[in-house]
Amino acid sequence: MEKTLESKRVYEGRIINLRLDSVVLENGNTAMREVVEHPGAVGIVALKENGDIVMVKQYRKAVEQVLLELPAGKLEQGEDPADCAARELTEETGYTAGDLRYLVSFYTSPGFSNEVMHMFLATDLKEGKNDPDDDEMVETVEISRDRAIDMILKGEIKDGKTIAGILLLGILK
Amino acid sequence: MEKTLESKRVYEGRIINLRLDSVVLENGNTAMREVVEHPGAVGIVALKENGDIVMVKQYRKAVEQVLLELPAGKLEQGEDPADCAARELTEETGYTAGDLRYLVSFYTSPGFSNEVMHMFLATDLKEGKNDPDDDEMVETVEISRDRAIDMILKGEIKDGKTIAGILLLGILK
Repeated sequence: MEKTLESKRVYEGRIINLRLDSVVLENGNTAMREVVEHPGAVGIVALKENGDIVMVKQYRKAVEQVLLELPAGKLEQGEDPADCAARELTEETGYTAGDLRYLVSFYTSPGFSNEVMHMFLATDLKEGKNDPDDDEMVETVEISRDRAIDMILKGEIKDGKTIAGILLLGILK
Repeated sequence: MEKTLESKRVYEGRIINLRLDSVVLENGNTAMREVVEHPGAVGIVALKENGDIVMVKQYRKAVEQVLLELPAGKLEQGEDPADCAARELTEETGYTAGDLRYLVSFYTSPGFSNEVMHMFLATDLKEGKNDPDDDEMVETVEISRDRAIDMILKGEIKDGKTIAGILLLGILK
């Protein structure tokens, strides 16, 4: 536990806020914690009947490059994660999921952010037209699971949630 | 690609900075991107001869709970990731690695941060005394890979890099 002495929000933004907390540690020392507040997000492992995984290519300003990722998106206020997963899958790829199964949730970077990622498995996919947000330019790519694993090992898939989501497929019961 | 029109750093902190970039998208629209700058980090899958994985329990202020994670830590300025991995493993767990193998690197949350996580496999471990930073209170826990996978599926391991790192073990060649 770390007891909060003082908490100050130094930035409120469109997607994230930044908070500075001064805390007392268990050993009595004090420390400052920088916390990036995030609304939470979902990621979707969308698996086709032929075994391909539906992924998206997207330019990511924060890392100044195009990344190959699982479809994903931020939760809207009060939105149920499963609803968000269904929505984001269709917006980004055009597919709708006949079956959507919750897998696990994890923190993407708990050292400095409360962002939680809820991961879903989408199957029984029906093709349709995508409808990305105005500030999103996404391209759909479908690759086999073996190819995806090869791309993870070669460093060609560089997104944490995407690595976790694809590898989760290998341990599902 | 997104062309940057203007870039403004609104916060400079101990671990992170926050930058606001206004950009032009490929479709000609403009957008604002919030970017959390981070020095990068390493994570270590430390595997004992008996198959146990060496993990750490640590209170994480950002998510207000104790998480079970792989040993990990931030890169110091100019530090080589392998040196950082060796250092953090010993500081947090007391173990030194006879063999340290680079696995992959990934972005923990590329939608808003440039944080990159370099993942290593540490084997041939020698026990010793840990030496955590002043503001770190960590407890070492050793668990079998089967138990770790079970804990991932049950939602008891909730840290993204830890899920990715443990599951990477299953695809290594």
